[in-house]
Amino acid sequence: MQLTGKNYIAGTISGNGNETFTSVNPRTKAEGDIQFYNATSDEINLAVEAAVDAFKEVRTYPASKLADFLDEVATQIEALGDELLETADMETGLGLPRLTGERGRTTGQLRAFGNLLRDGSYVRAIIDTEPNIRQMQFPIGPIAVFSASNFPFAFAVAGGDTASAFAAGCPVVVKGHPGHPATSELFAHALTEAVKAQDFPAGMFSMIQGSTIEVGQNLVEHEGIEAVGFTGSLRGGRAIYNTAAQRPKPIPVFAEMGSINPVVITQKALTSRSADIAEGLVNSVTLGTGQFCTNPGLILMENTDATQAFIESVTAQMTDKPEGVLLNGAIESGLEKAVNATKTKNSISILTGGEAVDDSDFFCYRNTVMETTAAEVRADEELQIEHFGPVTLFVLCEDMDDIKKTLEVVEGNLTTTIQAEEDEVDSLQDVLVLMREKSGRVIWNGYPTGVAVVYSMQHGGPYPATTAPGTTSVGMTALYRFMRPIAFQSMPQTLLPDALKDANPLGIMRIVDNQYSDASL
Amino acid sequence: MQLTGKNYIAGTISGNGNETFTSVNPRTKAEGDIQFYNATSDEINLAVEAAVDAFKEVRTYPASKLADFLDEVATQIEALGDELLETADMETGLGLPRLTGERGRTTGQLRAFGNLLRDGSYVRAIIDTEPNIRQMQFPIGPIAVFSASNFPFAFAVAGGDTASAFAAGCPVVVKGHPGHPATSELFAHALTEAVKAQDFPAGMFSMIQGSTIEVGQNLVEHEGIEAVGFTGSLRGGRAIYNTAAQRPKPIPVFAEMGSINPVVITQKALTSRSADIAEGLVNSVTLGTGQFCTNPGLILMENTDATQAFIESVTAQMTDKPEGVLLNGAIESGLEKAVNATKTKNSISILTGGEAVDDSDFFCYRNTVMETTAAEVRADEELQIEHFGPVTLFVLCEDMDDIKKTLEVVEGNLTTTIQAEEDEVDSLQDVLVLMREKSGRVIWNGYPTGVAVVYSMQHGGPYPATTAPGTTSVGMTALYRFMRPIAFQSMPQTLLPDALKDANPLGIMRIVDNQYSDASL
Repeated sequence: MQLTGKNYIAGTISGNGNETFTSVNPRTKAEGDIQFYNATSDEINLAVEAAVDAFKEVRTYPASKLADFLDEVATQIEALGDELLETADMETGLGLPRLTGERGRTTGQLRAFGNLLRDGSYVRAIIDTEPNIRQMQFPIGPIAVFSASNFPFAFAVAGGDTASAFAAGCPVVVKGHPGHPATSELFAHALTEAVKAQDFPAGMFSMIQGSTIEVGQNLVEHEGIEAVGFTGSLRGGRAIYNTAAQRPKPIPVFAEMGSINPVVITQKALTSRSADIAEGLVNSVTLGTGQFCTNPGLILMENTDATQAFIESVTAQMTDKPEGVLLNGAIESGLEKAVNATKTKNSISILTGGEAVDDSDFFCYRNTVMETTAAEVRADEELQIEHFGPVTLFVLCEDMDDIKKTLEVVEGNLTTTIQAEEDEVDSLQDVLVLMREKSGRVIWNGYPTGVAVVYSMQHGGPYPATTAPGTTSVGMTALYRFMRPIAFQSMPQTLLPDALKDANPLGIMRIVDNQYSDASL
Repeated sequence: MQLTGKNYIAGTISGNGNETFTSVNPRTKAEGDIQFYNATSDEINLAVEAAVDAFKEVRTYPASKLADFLDEVATQIEALGDELLETADMETGLGLPRLTGERGRTTGQLRAFGNLLRDGSYVRAIIDTEPNIRQMQFPIGPIAVFSASNFPFAFAVAGGDTASAFAAGCPVVVKGHPGHPATSELFAHALTEAVKAQDFPAGMFSMIQGSTIEVGQNLVEHEGIEAVGFTGSLRGGRAIYNTAAQRPKPIPVFAEMGSINPVVITQKALTSRSADIAEGLVNSVTLGTGQFCTNPGLILMENTDATQAFIESVTAQMTDKPEGVLLNGAIESGLEKAVNATKTKNSISILTGGEAVDDSDFFCYRNTVMETTAAEVRADEELQIEHFGPVTLFVLCEDMDDIKKTLEVVEGNLTTTIQAEEDEVDSLQDVLVLMREKSGRVIWNGYPTGVAVVYSMQHGGPYPATTAPGTTSVGMTALYRFMRPIAFQSMPQTLLPDALKDANPLGIMRIVDNQYSDASL
């Protein structure tokens, strides 16, 4: 399709601003031909006002109608065909195989939410008969979504935040990431078509382009926005959180801001699977050129000969592995700055890498392995900064107690991982409790970089991993971020939502007088 | 028992500060004999550090052990006997019958949480078998609780916030309300005894006294605190929210900050039940001298002869009803300021009251009825301020459309109420949706001032009613404010919590591969 470079405001294509930007091909560092228009404050106002109007209709829609819409969005994304993959590849350098998989994940999670809605029990109906009070979850209103750069499909215009907001029954205004504006426009086209095809109000979806901080702030500050979904950097997420908290009416910000994802590897695991773990770890650190929020960035091990051999093997593999393409220049310079800050510390040894590849045709940073000690990590919280790229830091520990002491000072993370053997489980109970307390997901004998979109997935964690540790941005429960409970007291049957009626016409699971039941009353 | 006037820091009685205050008997305006010590920052640090240490143990306790502790807290409160009722009555003027009922509610909700924990399904276990990922809710850590003045038992030291935090498995540091410090100390004694009796770590509970803003701020700013529960004024709640949002590590604040609780009364309801509704409304407005967050403060009615007669009847009853005792001088002066601000507006008519009773022996404000029009309410958001006391404002509307237009501009509330007849239900669907959007609880043919402690209760609502509209401070789901989900990936059975094991040894309801099931895998 012919790209316009403009904003999609409730079905209307609009580019009234003076500021423009282009996308940059990370493989050539060349700018594209299309000028993309930063949304003006008037355009943002129109988008949010249309979302507010749309919500007045959509909040009364049955779950089945929302489910049909989610399916339609998936279908329209598929209808973009190879153009979507090729455009995203040109803007991100992620490669067609990865992008094909990510597209499947993106349409898959839209349809999974559709299935959840058709099942119906997700509204968490709770009924007490004496007194007669009944509650369930309802959508909260228009949501602002900030796209991430590193998942141009799954955490972007039609990604997890948008899918879960739609599933909740909320209109969405997405700010596309300036790193892949053409990809954003393709998605905006697909979503606009889905809105039309399912006869939803046009304000159900808008997409604004923006290369400046002001665009995002204008969106978050609009009084019509009820909550924010964000995936990106700690600095960006915290700025949006602060803006939202300072509004006359503060709103929740669900910001997922990255993580260093500590990994513990026991000596017994090394004894039985050293080569496998080294290979798995290298693959995980370099997957997507290391540009994953769940990239394993802090590896805690007892300092033994076996550990030294393991680190040498990892280092050799990281050195040999060809450098991948970074998403954009900002990622490259940000990574350079972060590693430079770390490597100036006396406590840090660089085992391989530690610098950008200046003469590369593409945005590139050398695969990097660093080493320090547990005592140093405990003494210097700056050793816990995220190096967003193909970088990991080994932390040599005296013994398992030293590992535990270090886990105790680790900040909030999305994940923690342990590589160990089943026959040492009894001695690991303590360390498991610590890993649990420091993260949202604890992984046994795996690697953190896969995030399955299933009901039970928890993609969140204590600050600074997120601003809302009680929530997730992946998995079915992500939609509760955009819902709130409302109770009805002594309400006549005809005024109750179907989910709360005596007859249970939806046949859903409910809590009735403190017990789960799918029966009618 | 002999009151000390001191703080209860993890089982140790401590009064190291220089600042003291006394309680004041609202019936006589006389100060009590006991000096209560504002907690010092050192005392607050000790309390939070002890809570952090306690959490390291308590986070591994089974739900049954937490349930036993909750029961013990209830038992210890009952063991305070009549001294608790008499002390609270002297400090609040609420009267023994009300306080006896409130004590029952307070111990009842502690035991109700105990039952919830023994049932076990509250952990919201979600299991996927392919891939093998399992999540459930865990406690988040030490909680700061701010007591309210108007419910010295149910929203105070051992009130709903403390009960739900304990139920979640979190240690608590409570700041007692300076309006009833002796009552706070009695509760602190009971809770300290419960901690000892159940052999919990001493840091599970601390109570600090404080008559200054600094005490509360020191508590919220402590890095060991993971969340805040607050019930009180908009000004106080917002200040705490702001403090928490500005921390290096921001934390959630669950502040319930009051409400004007709009009530719609239809003409049909007047025709059939005018006298009953008038009596019910007067009782609701004056219950507890109007000092309820759920006090009906904005009454929307079509302007007809029947409505005028109804307002006259309410006004006459409000005039005749003896004035009640207000909790303290701050409530009296705050109410005077709020009504003064409202009554200076040309749009407002005072039908009765509208002034403090200056020569009263007790803290007292005249029962007050005011009147304005829907157009005025829509034009002036200041007409939506809360008048915390026995005050209500009638809003004359042209017709049902005028009522709806006014509901559209109403801010967030804890409750909305409609008095109507069953045979007009069809015409009320629209107004019901609006009421739902503006509140956390919608009441049919009742009054908002009763808040039943049941599983389905939702005591919350959009800002400014609360800072967290997705949560409740009353009812069983209140404990999720203080929990967060954690997922386990590919974890061996022996390292999984019982709630997530294949065998389902707790026999709880779980979501397994997208379906509710209490079977083993």
